[in-house]
Amino acid sequence: MNFLEKRILKDGIVKPGNVLKVDSFLNHQMDIALLDEIGKEFHRRFADKKITKVLTIEASGIAIAYPVAREFGVPLVFAKKSKSINIDGDLYVVEVESFTHKNINRVVVSKKFLSSDDHVLIIDDFLANGCALQGLISLVEDANATVEGLGIAIEKGFQDGGMRIRNLGYHLESLAIVDAMDPITGEITFREQ
Amino acid sequence: MNFLEKRILKDGIVKPGNVLKVDSFLNHQMDIALLDEIGKEFHRRFADKKITKVLTIEASGIAIAYPVAREFGVPLVFAKKSKSINIDGDLYVVEVESFTHKNINRVVVSKKFLSSDDHVLIIDDFLANGCALQGLISLVEDANATVEGLGIAIEKGFQDGGMRIRNLGYHLESLAIVDAMDPITGEITFREQ
Repeated sequence: MNFLEKRILKDGIVKPGNVLKVDSFLNHQMDIALLDEIGKEFHRRFADKKITKVLTIEASGIAIAYPVAREFGVPLVFAKKSKSINIDGDLYVVEVESFTHKNINRVVVSKKFLSSDDHVLIIDDFLANGCALQGLISLVEDANATVEGLGIAIEKGFQDGGMRIRNLGYHLESLAIVDAMDPITGEITFREQ
Repeated sequence: MNFLEKRILKDGIVKPGNVLKVDSFLNHQMDIALLDEIGKEFHRRFADKKITKVLTIEASGIAIAYPVAREFGVPLVFAKKSKSINIDGDLYVVEVESFTHKNINRVVVSKKFLSSDDHVLIIDDFLANGCALQGLISLVEDANATVEGLGIAIEKGFQDGGMRIRNLGYHLESLAIVDAMDPITGEITFREQ
Protein backbone atom coordinates (compact mmCIF):
# COMPACT_ATOMS: atom_id res chain seq x y z
CA MET A 1 0.00 0.00 0.00
CA ASN A 2 1.49 3.37 -0.97
CA PHE A 3 1.57 6.64 1.01
CA LEU A 4 -1.64 8.01 -0.55
CA GLU A 5 -3.62 4.81 -0.07
CA LYS A 6 -2.54 4.76 3.58
CA ARG A 7 -3.63 8.36 4.03
CA ILE A 8 -7.01 7.69 2.39
CA LEU A 9 -7.59 4.79 4.80
CA LYS A 10 -6.61 6.99 7.74
CA ASP A 11 -8.50 10.21 6.89
CA GLY A 12 -10.86 9.51 3.98
CA ILE A 13 -14.58 9.22 4.74
CA VAL A 14 -16.96 7.06 2.71
CA LYS A 15 -20.41 8.59 2.19
CA PRO A 16 -23.50 7.09 0.55
CA GLY A 17 -23.67 7.45 -3.25
CA ASN A 18 -20.05 6.39 -3.82
CA VAL A 19 -18.70 9.64 -2.42
CA LEU A 20 -15.19 9.58 -0.93
CA LYS A 21 -14.50 12.67 1.13
CA VAL A 22 -10.82 13.59 1.27
CA ASP A 23 -11.42 17.24 2.08
CA SER A 24 -9.30 17.21 5.23
CA PHE A 25 -6.06 16.64 3.31
CA LEU A 26 -6.56 16.83 -0.46
CA ASN A 27 -9.25 19.13 -1.84
CA HIS A 28 -10.43 21.72 0.71
CA GLN A 29 -7.82 21.65 3.45
CA MET A 30 -4.53 20.53 1.94
CA ASP A 31 -1.58 18.77 3.52
CA ILE A 32 1.36 20.34 1.67
CA ALA A 33 3.84 17.63 2.70
CA LEU A 34 1.52 14.98 1.19
CA LEU A 35 1.08 17.03 -1.99
CA ASP A 36 4.85 17.47 -2.31
CA GLU A 37 5.16 13.68 -2.06
CA ILE A 38 2.52 13.31 -4.79
CA GLY A 39 4.59 15.69 -6.95
CA LYS A 40 7.71 13.55 -6.47
CA GLU A 41 5.81 10.34 -7.21
CA PHE A 42 4.40 11.63 -10.53
CA HIS A 43 7.85 12.90 -11.46
CA ARG A 44 9.20 9.40 -10.84
CA ARG A 45 6.42 7.73 -12.85
CA PHE A 46 6.82 10.05 -15.87
CA ALA A 47 10.62 10.45 -15.58
CA ASP A 48 11.19 9.12 -19.12
CA LYS A 49 8.93 11.76 -20.69
CA LYS A 50 10.04 15.15 -21.94
CA ILE A 51 7.41 17.36 -20.28
CA THR A 52 7.17 21.08 -21.17
CA LYS A 53 3.91 21.94 -19.38
CA VAL A 54 1.65 20.62 -16.66
CA LEU A 55 -2.07 21.17 -17.32
CA THR A 56 -4.86 20.90 -14.77
CA ILE A 57 -8.37 22.27 -14.19
CA GLU A 58 -9.50 24.65 -11.47
CA ALA A 59 -9.85 24.55 -8.55
CA SER A 60 -8.53 21.66 -6.50
CA GLY A 61 -6.44 20.33 -9.40
CA ILE A 62 -4.15 23.34 -8.99
CA ALA A 63 -2.84 22.16 -5.62
CA ILE A 64 -2.02 18.69 -7.01
CA ALA A 65 -0.44 20.08 -10.17
CA TYR A 66 1.71 22.70 -8.42
CA PRO A 67 4.25 20.27 -6.91
CA VAL A 68 4.29 18.23 -10.14
CA ALA A 69 5.18 21.30 -12.22
CA ARG A 70 7.77 22.17 -9.57
CA GLU A 71 9.45 18.75 -9.88
CA PHE A 72 9.57 18.96 -13.68
CA GLY A 73 10.68 22.61 -13.62
CA VAL A 74 7.97 23.62 -16.11
CA PRO A 75 5.04 26.07 -16.10
CA LEU A 76 1.66 25.08 -14.70
CA VAL A 77 -1.40 25.98 -16.77
CA PHE A 78 -4.88 25.60 -15.37
CA ALA A 79 -8.00 25.37 -17.51
CA LYS A 80 -10.80 27.65 -16.37
CA LYS A 81 -14.48 26.86 -16.02
CA SER A 82 -16.29 29.57 -17.90
CA LYS A 83 -19.96 30.47 -17.90
CA SER A 84 -19.64 33.10 -20.64
CA ILE A 85 -21.60 32.47 -23.81
CA ASN A 86 -19.36 34.74 -25.88
CA ILE A 87 -16.15 32.91 -26.46
CA ASP A 88 -13.06 34.91 -27.16
CA GLY A 89 -11.32 33.70 -30.33
CA ASP A 90 -8.08 33.41 -28.43
CA LEU A 91 -9.28 30.46 -26.36
CA TYR A 92 -9.39 26.72 -26.78
CA VAL A 93 -12.86 25.66 -25.60
CA VAL A 94 -14.44 22.34 -24.67
CA GLU A 95 -17.68 21.41 -22.90
CA VAL A 96 -17.36 19.10 -19.91
CA GLU A 97 -20.04 17.43 -17.82
CA SER A 98 -19.44 17.38 -14.07
CA PHE A 99 -20.27 14.12 -12.32
CA THR A 100 -20.29 15.79 -8.89
CA HIS A 101 -22.36 18.83 -9.75
CA LYS A 102 -24.55 17.35 -12.54
CA ASN A 103 -24.02 20.34 -14.81
CA ILE A 104 -22.08 21.27 -17.94
CA ASN A 105 -19.07 23.54 -17.76
CA ARG A 106 -17.37 25.24 -20.61
CA VAL A 107 -13.66 24.72 -20.00
CA VAL A 108 -11.16 27.08 -21.61
CA VAL A 109 -7.42 27.64 -21.98
CA SER A 110 -5.84 30.66 -23.60
CA LYS A 111 -4.22 29.81 -26.95
CA LYS A 112 -1.10 31.63 -25.73
CA PHE A 113 -0.30 28.84 -23.28
CA LEU A 114 -0.59 25.67 -25.35
CA SER A 115 1.20 25.24 -28.66
CA SER A 116 2.21 22.46 -31.02
CA ASP A 117 5.66 22.39 -29.39
CA ASP A 118 4.24 21.44 -26.01
CA HIS A 119 4.53 18.03 -24.38
CA VAL A 120 1.86 18.06 -21.73
CA LEU A 121 1.36 16.13 -18.51
CA ILE A 122 -2.30 16.40 -17.43
CA ILE A 123 -2.91 16.26 -13.67
CA ASP A 124 -6.13 16.13 -11.64
CA ASP A 125 -7.23 15.06 -8.17
CA PHE A 126 -10.12 12.72 -9.09
CA LEU A 127 -11.03 10.49 -12.01
CA ALA A 128 -14.55 9.01 -12.10
CA ASN A 129 -16.38 8.99 -15.44
CA GLY A 130 -13.44 10.76 -17.07
CA CYS A 131 -15.34 13.67 -18.61
CA ALA A 132 -13.08 16.36 -17.12
CA LEU A 133 -9.98 14.47 -18.17
CA GLN A 134 -11.25 13.90 -21.71
CA GLY A 135 -11.99 17.63 -21.88
CA LEU A 136 -8.40 18.40 -20.95
CA ILE A 137 -7.13 15.91 -23.56
CA SER A 138 -9.30 17.66 -26.18
CA LEU A 139 -7.83 21.06 -25.27
CA VAL A 140 -4.28 19.74 -25.69
CA GLU A 141 -5.11 18.10 -28.99
CA ASP A 142 -6.89 21.23 -30.27
CA ALA A 143 -3.52 22.93 -29.76
CA ASN A 144 -1.76 20.15 -31.71
CA ALA A 145 0.32 19.60 -28.59
CA THR A 146 1.24 16.11 -27.33
CA VAL A 147 -0.39 14.42 -24.33
CA GLU A 148 2.61 12.69 -22.74
CA GLY A 149 0.61 11.28 -19.86
CA LEU A 150 -2.12 11.76 -17.28
CA GLY A 151 -1.60 11.65 -13.52
CA ILE A 152 -4.52 11.26 -11.11
CA ALA A 153 -4.44 11.19 -7.34
CA ILE A 154 -7.58 9.07 -6.80
CA GLU A 155 -9.35 7.02 -9.46
CA LYS A 156 -12.76 5.51 -8.84
CA GLY A 157 -12.08 2.12 -10.41
CA PHE A 158 -15.74 1.12 -10.30
CA GLN A 159 -16.54 3.86 -12.85
CA ASP A 160 -15.34 3.53 -16.41
CA GLY A 161 -13.39 6.76 -16.96
CA GLY A 162 -9.96 5.23 -16.33
CA MET A 163 -10.66 2.21 -18.53
CA ARG A 164 -11.85 4.37 -21.42
CA ILE A 165 -8.79 6.62 -21.28
CA ARG A 166 -6.37 3.67 -21.06
CA ASN A 167 -8.20 2.01 -23.98
CA LEU A 168 -7.55 5.12 -26.07
CA GLY A 169 -3.83 4.42 -25.58
CA TYR A 170 -2.94 7.16 -23.13
CA HIS A 171 -0.42 6.60 -20.35
CA LEU A 172 -2.59 7.11 -17.27
CA GLU A 173 -1.18 6.75 -13.77
CA SER A 174 -3.48 6.84 -10.74
CA LEU A 175 -1.80 6.81 -7.34
CA ALA A 176 -4.82 5.15 -5.70
CA ILE A 177 -7.52 3.20 -7.50
CA VAL A 178 -10.60 2.59 -5.36
CA ASP A 179 -12.40 -0.55 -6.53
CA ALA A 180 -15.07 -0.57 -3.82
CA MET A 181 -16.29 1.52 -0.91
CA ASP A 182 -18.80 0.59 1.78
CA PRO A 183 -20.61 3.57 3.35
CA ILE A 184 -21.86 1.35 6.23
CA THR A 185 -18.55 -0.10 7.39
CA GLY A 186 -16.36 2.64 5.88
CA GLU A 187 -14.25 -0.07 4.22
CA ILE A 188 -12.24 0.95 1.13
CA THR A 189 -10.80 -1.61 -1.28
CA PHE A 190 -7.85 -0.54 -3.45
CA ARG A 191 -6.86 -2.19 -6.72
CA GLU A 192 -3.50 -3.97 -6.57
CA GLN A 193 -1.09 -2.12 -8.90
CA MET B 1 12.10 47.47 -7.38
CA ASN B 2 11.48 43.91 -6.12
CA PHE B 3 11.37 40.66 -8.11
CA LEU B 4 7.60 40.74 -8.63
CA GLU B 5 7.50 44.38 -9.73
CA LYS B 6 10.28 43.61 -12.24
CA ARG B 7 8.33 40.65 -13.58
CA ILE B 8 5.12 42.70 -13.89
CA LEU B 9 7.02 45.32 -15.92
CA LYS B 10 8.49 42.59 -18.11
CA ASP B 11 5.41 40.44 -18.75
CA GLY B 12 2.32 42.27 -17.44
CA ILE B 13 -0.03 43.80 -20.00
CA VAL B 14 -2.12 46.90 -19.28
CA LYS B 15 -5.60 46.82 -20.82
CA PRO B 16 -8.28 49.52 -20.90
CA GLY B 17 -10.51 49.69 -17.82
CA ASN B 18 -7.66 49.39 -15.32
CA VAL B 19 -7.10 45.74 -16.16
CA LEU B 20 -3.61 44.34 -15.57
CA LYS B 21 -3.13 41.00 -17.29
CA VAL B 22 -0.56 38.78 -15.57
CA ASP B 23 -1.94 35.55 -16.98
CA SER B 24 1.35 34.46 -18.54
CA PHE B 25 3.03 33.98 -15.13
CA LEU B 26 0.60 34.41 -12.23
CA ASN B 27 -3.03 33.42 -12.74
CA HIS B 28 -3.56 31.22 -15.78
CA GLN B 29 -0.09 30.01 -16.73
CA MET B 30 2.06 29.99 -13.61
CA ASP B 31 5.80 30.35 -13.21
CA ILE B 32 6.50 28.03 -10.28
CA ALA B 33 9.95 29.50 -9.54
CA LEU B 34 8.36 32.95 -9.21
CA LEU B 35 5.60 31.58 -6.97
CA ASP B 36 8.16 29.82 -4.77
CA GLU B 37 9.94 33.16 -4.41
CA ILE B 38 6.61 34.79 -3.44
CA GLY B 39 6.20 32.07 -0.80
CA LYS B 40 9.64 32.83 0.66
CA GLU B 41 8.97 36.58 0.66
CA PHE B 42 5.68 36.27 2.57
CA HIS B 43 7.37 33.92 5.02
CA ARG B 44 10.02 36.59 5.61
CA ARG B 45 7.45 39.39 6.02
CA PHE B 46 5.32 37.43 8.52
CA ALA B 47 8.22 35.62 10.23
CA ASP B 48 7.31 37.03 13.66
CA LYS B 49 3.77 35.59 13.51
CA LYS B 50 2.72 32.18 14.80
CA ILE B 51 0.77 30.93 11.76
CA THR B 52 -1.26 27.70 12.00
CA LYS B 53 -3.14 27.92 8.67
CA VAL B 54 -2.97 29.67 5.33
CA LEU B 55 -6.38 30.60 3.88
CA THR B 56 -7.09 31.60 0.29
CA ILE B 57 -9.99 31.57 -2.18
CA GLU B 58 -10.31 29.51 -5.34
CA ALA B 59 -9.02 29.39 -7.99
CA SER B 60 -5.85 31.38 -8.71
CA GLY B 61 -5.28 32.13 -5.01
CA ILE B 62 -4.41 28.46 -4.50
CA ALA B 63 -1.20 28.70 -6.53
CA ILE B 64 -0.01 31.74 -4.54
CA ALA B 65 -0.98 30.22 -1.19
CA TYR B 66 0.63 26.82 -1.83
CA PRO B 67 4.26 27.96 -1.51
CA VAL B 68 3.36 30.18 1.47
CA ALA B 69 1.81 27.24 3.36
CA ARG B 70 4.86 25.20 2.38
CA GLU B 71 7.27 27.76 3.88
CA PHE B 72 5.30 27.94 7.14
CA GLY B 73 4.82 24.15 7.28
CA VAL B 74 1.06 24.49 7.85
CA PRO B 75 -2.08 23.32 6.04
CA LEU B 76 -3.58 25.33 3.19
CA VAL B 77 -7.35 25.86 3.23
CA PHE B 78 -9.15 27.34 0.28
CA ALA B 79 -12.58 28.95 0.48
CA LYS B 80 -14.97 27.75 -2.21
CA LYS B 81 -17.32 29.80 -4.33
CA SER B 82 -20.71 28.16 -3.98
CA LYS B 83 -23.85 28.67 -6.02
CA SER B 84 -26.00 26.42 -3.82
CA ILE B 85 -28.95 28.05 -2.11
CA ASN B 86 -29.13 25.37 0.58
CA ILE B 87 -26.29 25.98 2.96
CA ASP B 88 -25.04 23.06 4.97
CA GLY B 89 -24.92 23.88 8.68
CA ASP B 90 -21.32 22.75 8.80
CA LEU B 91 -20.07 25.69 6.72
CA TYR B 92 -19.00 29.24 7.43
CA VAL B 93 -20.65 31.38 4.74
CA VAL B 94 -20.15 34.92 3.47
CA GLU B 95 -21.36 36.78 0.38
CA VAL B 96 -18.67 38.45 -1.72
CA GLU B 97 -19.01 40.74 -4.71
CA SER B 98 -16.57 40.14 -7.56
CA PHE B 99 -15.06 43.26 -9.13
CA THR B 100 -13.93 41.34 -12.22
CA HIS B 101 -17.10 39.39 -12.90
CA LYS B 102 -19.67 41.89 -11.52
CA ASN B 103 -21.57 39.21 -9.64
CA ILE B 104 -22.09 37.99 -6.09
CA ASN B 105 -20.52 34.75 -4.93
CA ARG B 106 -21.35 32.87 -1.79
CA VAL B 107 -17.98 31.91 -0.30
CA VAL B 108 -17.79 29.00 2.10
CA VAL B 109 -15.33 27.13 4.31
CA SER B 110 -16.07 23.94 6.19
CA LYS B 111 -16.25 24.51 9.95
CA LYS B 112 -13.91 21.53 10.37
CA PHE B 113 -10.98 23.52 9.00
CA LEU B 114 -11.11 26.80 10.95
CA SER B 115 -11.31 26.88 14.74
CA SER B 116 -10.73 29.35 17.56
CA ASP B 117 -7.20 27.95 18.00
CA ASP B 118 -6.19 28.99 14.50
CA HIS B 119 -3.84 31.84 13.64
CA VAL B 120 -4.51 32.50 10.00
CA LEU B 121 -2.50 34.12 7.23
CA ILE B 122 -4.84 35.10 4.38
CA ILE B 123 -3.30 35.05 0.89
CA ASP B 124 -4.65 36.13 -2.49
CA ASP B 125 -3.31 37.14 -5.88
CA PHE B 126 -5.12 40.48 -6.37
CA LEU B 127 -6.54 43.20 -4.13
CA ALA B 128 -8.72 45.86 -5.74
CA ASN B 129 -11.88 46.93 -3.88
CA GLY B 130 -11.12 44.40 -1.13
CA CYS B 131 -14.46 42.58 -1.17
CA ALA B 132 -12.94 39.11 -1.53
CA LEU B 133 -10.40 39.82 1.20
CA GLN B 134 -13.02 41.19 3.57
CA GLY B 135 -15.07 38.05 2.93
CA LEU B 136 -12.11 35.89 3.94
CA ILE B 137 -11.58 38.01 7.08
CA SER B 138 -15.26 37.48 7.96
CA LEU B 139 -14.93 33.72 7.59
CA VAL B 140 -11.91 33.67 9.94
CA GLU B 141 -13.68 35.85 12.48
CA ASP B 142 -16.87 33.76 12.29
CA ALA B 143 -14.65 30.88 13.43
CA ASN B 144 -13.29 33.01 16.31
CA ALA B 145 -9.87 32.40 14.82
CA THR B 146 -7.21 35.14 14.61
CA VAL B 147 -6.26 36.98 11.42
CA GLU B 148 -2.49 37.29 11.83
CA GLY B 149 -2.01 39.01 8.51
CA LEU B 150 -2.90 39.30 4.86
CA GLY B 151 -0.51 38.81 1.96
CA ILE B 152 -1.34 39.97 -1.56
CA ALA B 153 0.72 39.60 -4.71
CA ILE B 154 -0.62 42.65 -6.58
CA GLU B 155 -2.62 45.50 -5.02
CA LYS B 156 -4.35 48.08 -7.18
CA GLY B 157 -3.40 51.13 -5.12
CA PHE B 158 -5.77 53.39 -7.03
CA GLN B 159 -8.74 51.44 -5.59
CA ASP B 160 -9.56 51.69 -1.91
CA GLY B 161 -9.55 48.04 -0.77
CA GLY B 162 -6.04 48.14 0.67
CA MET B 163 -6.59 51.42 2.49
CA ARG B 164 -9.82 50.17 4.08
CA ILE B 165 -8.23 46.94 5.29
CA ARG B 166 -5.17 48.74 6.72
CA ASN B 167 -7.49 51.28 8.39
CA LEU B 168 -9.23 48.40 10.17
CA GLY B 169 -5.87 47.63 11.79
CA TYR B 170 -4.91 44.51 9.86
CA HIS B 171 -1.32 43.76 8.89
CA LEU B 172 -1.56 43.77 5.10
CA GLU B 173 1.49 43.20 2.91
CA SER B 174 1.30 43.62 -0.86
CA LEU B 175 4.36 42.66 -2.86
CA ALA B 176 3.52 45.11 -5.64
CA ILE B 177 1.21 48.12 -5.31
CA VAL B 178 0.20 49.56 -8.68
CA ASP B 179 -0.63 53.25 -8.28
CA ALA B 180 -1.25 53.97 -11.95
CA MET B 181 -1.44 52.17 -15.30
CA ASP B 182 -1.62 53.64 -18.78
CA PRO B 183 -3.29 51.40 -21.38
CA ILE B 184 -1.93 53.57 -24.23
CA THR B 185 1.77 53.56 -23.31
CA GLY B 186 1.63 50.41 -21.17
CA GLU B 187 3.40 52.31 -18.39
CA ILE B 188 2.94 50.99 -14.83
CA THR B 189 3.73 53.09 -11.75
CA PHE B 190 4.46 51.24 -8.50
CA ARG B 191 4.13 52.76 -5.04
CA GLU B 192 7.45 53.13 -3.20
CA GLN B 193 7.37 50.80 -0.18
